Amino acid sequence: MAKPLILVSNDDGITAPGIRMLVEVAMRIGEVVVVAPDSPQSGMGHAITIGNTLRLDKSIAFADLGVEAYECSGTPADCVKLAKYYVLKDRTPDLVVSGINHGSNSSISVLYSGTMSAAIEAAIEGLPAIGFSLCDYGHDADFSHIPDYVEQIIRQALEHKIPSNTTLNVNFPKKSNEPIKGIKVCRQAHAKWQEEFDERLDPNNRRYFWMTGSFVNFDKGEDTDEWALVNNYISVVPCQYDLTAHHAIVRLNEWNF
Amino acid sequence: MAKPLILVSNDDGITAPGIRMLVEVAMRIGEVVVVAPDSPQSGMGHAITIGNTLRLDKSIAFADLGVEAYECSGTPADCVKLAKYYVLKDRTPDLVVSGINHGSNSSISVLYSGTMSAAIEAAIEGLPAIGFSLCDYGHDADFSHIPDYVEQIIRQALEHKIPSNTTLNVNFPKKSNEPIKGIKVCRQAHAKWQEEFDERLDPNNRRYFWMTGSFVNFDKGEDTDEWALVNNYISVVPCQYDLTAHHAIVRLNEWNF
Repeated sequence: MAKPLILVSNDDGITAPGIRMLVEVAMRIGEVVVVAPDSPQSGMGHAITIGNTLRLDKSIAFADLGVEAYECSGTPADCVKLAKYYVLKDRTPDLVVSGINHGSNSSISVLYSGTMSAAIEAAIEGLPAIGFSLCDYGHDADFSHIPDYVEQIIRQALEHKIPSNTTLNVNFPKKSNEPIKGIKVCRQAHAKWQEEFDERLDPNNRRYFWMTGSFVNFDKGEDTDEWALVNNYISVVPCQYDLTAHHAIVRLNEWNF
Repeated sequence: MAKPLILVSNDDGITAPGIRMLVEVAMRIGEVVVVAPDSPQSGMGHAITIGNTLRLDKSIAFADLGVEAYECSGTPADCVKLAKYYVLKDRTPDLVVSGINHGSNSSISVLYSGTMSAAIEAAIEGLPAIGFSLCDYGHDADFSHIPDYVEQIIRQALEHKIPSNTTLNVNFPKKSNEPIKGIKVCRQAHAKWQEEFDERLDPNNRRYFWMTGSFVNFDKGEDTDEWALVNNYISVVPCQYDLTAHHAIVRLNEWNF
């Protein structure tokens, strides 16, 4: 039986330790092709490059592993589009994996996440896809506790098939002295970022801002990704790209249009 | 009774004709404050600026109308965050409106849309919000057939309240000889962009690409935004930021985790 073809992307850039870990795990399972941003793209959400040009070059980032890799000047969503329509063309990947992100993409962060935008873009293209993130923002984040779980989730996705028009948002607890308790299928917690703007003056006395914020979870449910992560479980949330609030259609049909 | 406070943003930038039309309509109804990008941000999706600084300056773009306005170096989502946490602070807007976008944001384009990311960001912040887009990509797009409809939708939203945790994605047909037939509440059509990459060589003989694409609608439903627009109706889709594919949770709970 032919090995499955696994496309790997991310948003921290092709040289991030997280994508290397993901490539190494994917190589245990299948043939791997990497198309990833040539520089960090965190917080890019589902941005795409329109009105501007894109670069795509062969990359030596995974030459030591013998893996075919390309680096792209665009966003994670651009990378998946270029991979599908230009790099792979007639080769259809059996799975697209994105990450492993340095930092959480649970609950509302899924919207801001470049990692998840690569997975969602793949789902739009009809490809099974998973985004992986570790709740540790450091460039030197410790991924050592998760590779076997990443492998398990990838193998399960290949065996059981990801439900159509959905993609998986997988988040891992930060490494701690507590062992991971297991994997939980969850819903996205109702939460948001409470922002603060740190106002400063540049050397020319012109005002600028740093956005900082703290995460606020409004959701007391024990079936959420936040609950799972706080309790040292790996969270798996199936995500869809149909944003329609179907329950609200009835309400809006009462308006005077 | 105090006039409602209406916050206006967009993604085509503060000098685009579409936002001027929206400000003029909003002024018929309430007090208007503008916080918009200082340059075009089309296709920025739900990107936010992290790891980099933001500028925010008073803008003279609407001085002729006597409207308080600010221009921001960031994305549409950044603009809404800055508006809420810095510009308006204790003043809570009664409504946030974004647009009017030069170009369609119907069906799958809602994910790539900077216009809609401003509206969705407002919804995350608990603010009622509407994104408006016209199916005409030109900088000189003709908005003359829609201001009264924009006013009607804003007034209805203020009167009936937008359902919690949702925001409205409103798209208008391009101006034609056919009159608009009315306003339809719709769901997001199942569609995607089929991409092509136009490969070129720069003056140094290095390869670059333009992404081009054509829109493909897979959805035969007559309750979709695409159906409405093709049939010369205005489409109104309620959108949510909970991406959980709740129906898929049962399926995933059969996996071996």
